[in-house]
Amino acid sequence: MGGHIEQNENLCQSDAASYLTHREKLPDIVDAIIQGCEQHTCHHHIAFEPIPSKEAVTEIIDRFRAILFPGYFTREKLDPVNLKYSMGQTVSVLYDLLAEQICRSLRHDCFRYGREDLACRDCQGMAHEMALKVLQSVPAIQQVMTKDVAAAYDGDPAAKSYDEIIFSYPGIFAIWVCRIAHRLNELAVPFLPRIMTEHAHSLTGIDIHPGAKIGERFVIDHGTGVVIGETTEIGHNVRIYQGVTLGALSLPKNAGEQLRGKKRHPTIEDDVIIYAGATILGGDTVIGRRSVIGGNVWITESIPPDTKVLTEAPKLIYR
Amino acid sequence: MGGHIEQNENLCQSDAASYLTHREKLPDIVDAIIQGCEQHTCHHHIAFEPIPSKEAVTEIIDRFRAILFPGYFTREKLDPVNLKYSMGQTVSVLYDLLAEQICRSLRHDCFRYGREDLACRDCQGMAHEMALKVLQSVPAIQQVMTKDVAAAYDGDPAAKSYDEIIFSYPGIFAIWVCRIAHRLNELAVPFLPRIMTEHAHSLTGIDIHPGAKIGERFVIDHGTGVVIGETTEIGHNVRIYQGVTLGALSLPKNAGEQLRGKKRHPTIEDDVIIYAGATILGGDTVIGRRSVIGGNVWITESIPPDTKVLTEAPKLIYR
Amino acid sequence: MGGHIEQNENLCQSDAASYLTHREKLPDIVDAIIQGCEQHTCHHHIAFEPIPSKEAVTEIIDRFRAILFPGYFTREKLDPVNLKYSMGQTVSVLYDLLAEQICRSLRHDCFRYGREDLACRDCQGMAHEMALKVLQSVPAIQQVMTKDVAAAYDGDPAAKSYDEIIFSYPGIFAIWVCRIAHRLNELAVPFLPRIMTEHAHSLTGIDIHPGAKIGERFVIDHGTGVVIGETTEIGHNVRIYQGVTLGALSLPKNAGEQLRGKKRHPTIEDDVIIYAGATILGGDTVIGRRSVIGGNVWITESIPPDTKVLTEAPKLIYR
Repeated sequence: MGGHIEQNENLCQSDAASYLTHREKLPDIVDAIIQGCEQHTCHHHIAFEPIPSKEAVTEIIDRFRAILFPGYFTREKLDPVNLKYSMGQTVSVLYDLLAEQICRSLRHDCFRYGREDLACRDCQGMAHEMALKVLQSVPAIQQVMTKDVAAAYDGDPAAKSYDEIIFSYPGIFAIWVCRIAHRLNELAVPFLPRIMTEHAHSLTGIDIHPGAKIGERFVIDHGTGVVIGETTEIGHNVRIYQGVTLGALSLPKNAGEQLRGKKRHPTIEDDVIIYAGATILGGDTVIGRRSVIGGNVWITESIPPDTKVLTEAPKLIYR
Repeated sequence: MGGHIEQNENLCQSDAASYLTHREKLPDIVDAIIQGCEQHTCHHHIAFEPIPSKEAVTEIIDRFRAILFPGYFTREKLDPVNLKYSMGQTVSVLYDLLAEQICRSLRHDCFRYGREDLACRDCQGMAHEMALKVLQSVPAIQQVMTKDVAAAYDGDPAAKSYDEIIFSYPGIFAIWVCRIAHRLNELAVPFLPRIMTEHAHSLTGIDIHPGAKIGERFVIDHGTGVVIGETTEIGHNVRIYQGVTLGALSLPKNAGEQLRGKKRHPTIEDDVIIYAGATILGGDTVIGRRSVIGGNVWITESIPPDTKVLTEAPKLIYR
Repeated sequence: MGGHIEQNENLCQSDAASYLTHREKLPDIVDAIIQGCEQHTCHHHIAFEPIPSKEAVTEIIDRFRAILFPGYFTREKLDPVNLKYSMGQTVSVLYDLLAEQICRSLRHDCFRYGREDLACRDCQGMAHEMALKVLQSVPAIQQVMTKDVAAAYDGDPAAKSYDEIIFSYPGIFAIWVCRIAHRLNELAVPFLPRIMTEHAHSLTGIDIHPGAKIGERFVIDHGTGVVIGETTEIGHNVRIYQGVTLGALSLPKNAGEQLRGKKRHPTIEDDVIIYAGATILGGDTVIGRRSVIGGNVWITESIPPDTKVLTEAPKLIYR
């Protein structure tokens, strides 16, 4: 940090004494923080086993993108000559990153639940197995993504090309991250899937829980403010717009424990369109095939197939 | 990646055999992915010409910011002595970055449309020309931005100073990125404008299509969830709040092709205020001068000038 | 930038002449930009004293996170052996970073208001004092954060563990950044608090002004689109969902100056729940204890305690 101190000196040549006086109080602060941690008045993870790393998860997402859409997001161009070398190296690096983070996640859960009977080796072996399974599902996810991209193009007059969609549409990013995270979630990997989807949420404003089941040709347009809950089921060829919530009904207080794992979010059947700001709530709510839900509509009951649901426009007052 | 492997070893000394067994399956995965690409079940860009780079576009945006607001966002301070050197160097670097990315965008479009008759030289020359034109419009955009900043300050009691607005207001960031992207869009540069505005969308939650025409003294307050469509026209001195949509009416299925290029989004005349969550839809919808659109209002028809539009408040139920 | 030029050459061997012709026009652009700055048609900060740095603020936020949740976000793992060394070093570095940015902020304000009578030394000394005070409040903020995390877990059936919440919930991030920024705001540090909360806004879509007063066990679920204004007061054990606005009533034009500093945003008492998309406006509006505000409700008047407020559902039209 020499640079910083130098800048301080530039800014103000004097005051070395004041600086020292203040700095001398830092050890007390450090002790107070550590004491707090020891008395459980702070959340900490001070332990000998390493914990999943947010930075590593970000790198995992970047590497997955390079593999899912070859040539679009690699720093070096990909051509027919270097394709196999570049792809091979990326898959290899990704495998190691993924296995390590899965292992850390499993390990952390072991300790948390006092499963210290599980040898470290078990977590490691399971992590290798799971990382391999996720990578083996990449070609299938690529196939689905080609359909998602085509669906995004078909319904959006502002889209100029598939490439523009792949490069810049936040909906596509949120969807593929969710498809990978969903696979990890199926394998019961803790932490990692949610860290991945929340990373996508941060970049796109689209909040999809990795538990959600999502069909092919899924489109999210604009996307900011979309929330899709853990037990949502979405069929094929569904299109939703910004600010759509597929959520749970209001909860009794401290509902956390009672409802954990129950179906709380709606089911959206094939070929449904849901316009901006619509809210659809409840685990028993089913939106039937080919129905269209208008903007800002608030739905807590099932809608039959082939129905168009609009809100009676509230009277406007002109002054 | 030596570090990672080492960490794996730290975590779990054993299991070299399991690690090897699993890793040996990676080449099959690589082959499956490559085979998928060859059979067009994935989107890829495997070609000898380079493709636009998202990272370069991010750097372009950072450099534009350093030029548009001199001294605010440069790593080294800018003073009267080094101003010309620093500005000259930033403009020079930005010119090269911009020309290269424009060239790649044009080149990519040439290949996509089979325009291989166009010599590489044409794209290169056009790119130089276009990069220069965009940079030449910087002083005019700076003038407009001083008005945007002043307008943001005038209407926001929480703003403490112009500097706070320049440093931290997401609306200002989204607006200037859009003004630059709009200029690139006018020059018919593909990809780049949309990648730029989607980068701003990611950072701000404000989604402005680079095609939108926007007047002076434009203010977006808070901003998350704002959507402004491709063919929107906005006059001078307009102020909008978070969650406002200036969008298209609901589309017939597969409307993408039919409506591409048509006016689909509203026109907002001078001195209009649009409060949070209002939705204004349709290419024929005109909001007349000095009108005020209340929060959450849903409008699909034109509003005359000097009108205040509110939604009749829905009855509240108290329990 | 040798690399870039090389790439240009790869792309297109010819055209050195055209490149040169275009580049020779850059100095005119530089001169035009500088001239604009001199004529005050651009916002610039060309001065001998350094200005706060957005990058440094980002680093400050990262370091605070490492201290507030020890072991979760550090690159190296934290264990009982290295805890004190690692924590000590992070606090020490953070202190220097923070003091420097506070000093720059104060200094900048001095110049802006022509307070050049204040010796540089005063800003420096005040900055040391303020940085120390903020760090001294860390253990108290950690205690509050343990309650916030527990409250997030209690009410969210999708949360799998406290660790998942700490790692990935955007609400937790936005809240702790705001708690730190609020402390800086209490000390009347300019710029810095707002740059911090706007950084969190960018990453989470949650826009909390550092002036807002927020009680313990505060939960923001999903969070995208939440806006909490400067003079909002929030009691203990309050839970809000995505898209909730706690804002000001519509403003007369140029209200900026008149209303600066006045109470313009609502008061939310203890144990209130506010569901997604609700809007509560006005400085005199008080939501009484234990009340529940339904989704999308629009409130501009006070609500008594123990009240459940719903919007009469608008009639749905089925076609």
